[in-house]
Amino acid sequence: MIIRYMNPENLIHENEQIDELGRGLCIIQKKQGFKYGTDSVLLAKYILMSEDILPAKFRTGSMHCADFGTGTGILPLLLSRKEGFTHLSGLELQGEYAEMARRSVALNGLSSRITIVEGDIKSAASIFGKASMQLVLTNPPYKRAGAGIHSGLESEAIARHEIYCNLEDVIQNAAAVLEPGGAFFMIHRPERLADAIETMRRYKLEPKRIRFVYPKIDRSPSMFLVAGVKCGGKNLVIERPLVLMSEDGQETEDLRNIYAY
Amino acid sequence: MIIRYMNPENLIHENEQIDELGRGLCIIQKKQGFKYGTDSVLLAKYILMSEDILPAKFRTGSMHCADFGTGTGILPLLLSRKEGFTHLSGLELQGEYAEMARRSVALNGLSSRITIVEGDIKSAASIFGKASMQLVLTNPPYKRAGAGIHSGLESEAIARHEIYCNLEDVIQNAAAVLEPGGAFFMIHRPERLADAIETMRRYKLEPKRIRFVYPKIDRSPSMFLVAGVKCGGKNLVIERPLVLMSEDGQETEDLRNIYAY
Repeated sequence: MIIRYMNPENLIHENEQIDELGRGLCIIQKKQGFKYGTDSVLLAKYILMSEDILPAKFRTGSMHCADFGTGTGILPLLLSRKEGFTHLSGLELQGEYAEMARRSVALNGLSSRITIVEGDIKSAASIFGKASMQLVLTNPPYKRAGAGIHSGLESEAIARHEIYCNLEDVIQNAAAVLEPGGAFFMIHRPERLADAIETMRRYKLEPKRIRFVYPKIDRSPSMFLVAGVKCGGKNLVIERPLVLMSEDGQETEDLRNIYAY
Repeated sequence: MIIRYMNPENLIHENEQIDELGRGLCIIQKKQGFKYGTDSVLLAKYILMSEDILPAKFRTGSMHCADFGTGTGILPLLLSRKEGFTHLSGLELQGEYAEMARRSVALNGLSSRITIVEGDIKSAASIFGKASMQLVLTNPPYKRAGAGIHSGLESEAIARHEIYCNLEDVIQNAAAVLEPGGAFFMIHRPERLADAIETMRRYKLEPKRIRFVYPKIDRSPSMFLVAGVKCGGKNLVIERPLVLMSEDGQETEDLRNIYAY
């Protein structure tokens, strides 16, 4: 921890730590509890590398973006390095995470661009307004409520399981706050691919790109990234595989490029 | 051409050739016109390697299978090597192909197990009967009618483009002829993945497995294989990638294994 983090305004609480995100960014995380994962980094870099399907307001510097279930605030923080993501709102149900994410934003001096809102994804349209956003991104809870074993900590269970909102809630509300032509980005688990595609179509978020993330080339994918466009035309591209580890267990060039990007 | 093919009953016509399929099987194809491709071989081997999701009648030797748009008859011929695919019906709209496929079946001595039916996929339920099949497989026309350039030969254009039936016709009629628990297998192009998944769901063919076929590991996939189950529960698996060529342009072990299987 270096001197500029030395808690000038009580920005860091007990049982919290500060982690470096690269390029001068940092993030406050709980020493115990839900931490951001590789999935958030992959999603942020995927969006940063997909400028060409972002709406025109990305280039004119007037884009409003919402992160549904922002948790630690990792996604708005990572996206903030490109000016095109002008206004970033992180929506978080759990008050303790929203409050901590707000302190991370302040610690990075980004309070003028990133707003952390405590609230429910299911109320997103009333919180932000219908058709008010040009980009919605989300790394939502992956697991169906009741599926698998809940983590010991309740706050972690809420972040990982569909306890307070399910995939349809996420997609329905993303579609509601997006204006036509607005972009939707999500990372999710392959077993939910059919649910994601079917539900996106139902709410007029046309799937445009899907990229599967393979831990190794001879394995099933562990995640997929999807980009959709509100009221977009049909022209889906399945992108080349994103393989994380080579057969001998080394980071692939693709993964190194993503972390370096 | 060896002696047993010497056209004892006028089985081979002018402008036709006989190609070996391995394991003693052969097929009649036109010297000019639509020939079976790698996609048909991949689909047949995918089904042969996916016994575990076939309904119980596969194991009791009473399974009825239909191939929608059988063309040369390649798929029933390849599946016939496993006895579990007891009764195979190939449905083909184009009379000249149906007639040629019927001669291929006779040439292989398989007329008791494989029936080639001249007819329209859109009439499949009246041709075969509702809920009469335990397996429907299809390598349908890939391209939207009007998309891309039609092949010079009309019969080839019909095989490749959605001129007489579209993806929804294929899926709707597959669902109609399948009994609950029956399996559906299809190979198609990645740009139609969302259409395929959404439409399968709509007609209660639950997607269970998807495998993407990549020409090389650093490319977008060129095809996908999908297996669904009529009225099946939700548990989709995206399988490990099927890569056809190594980076130095050699056939991969996976591809060699598929051809050898």
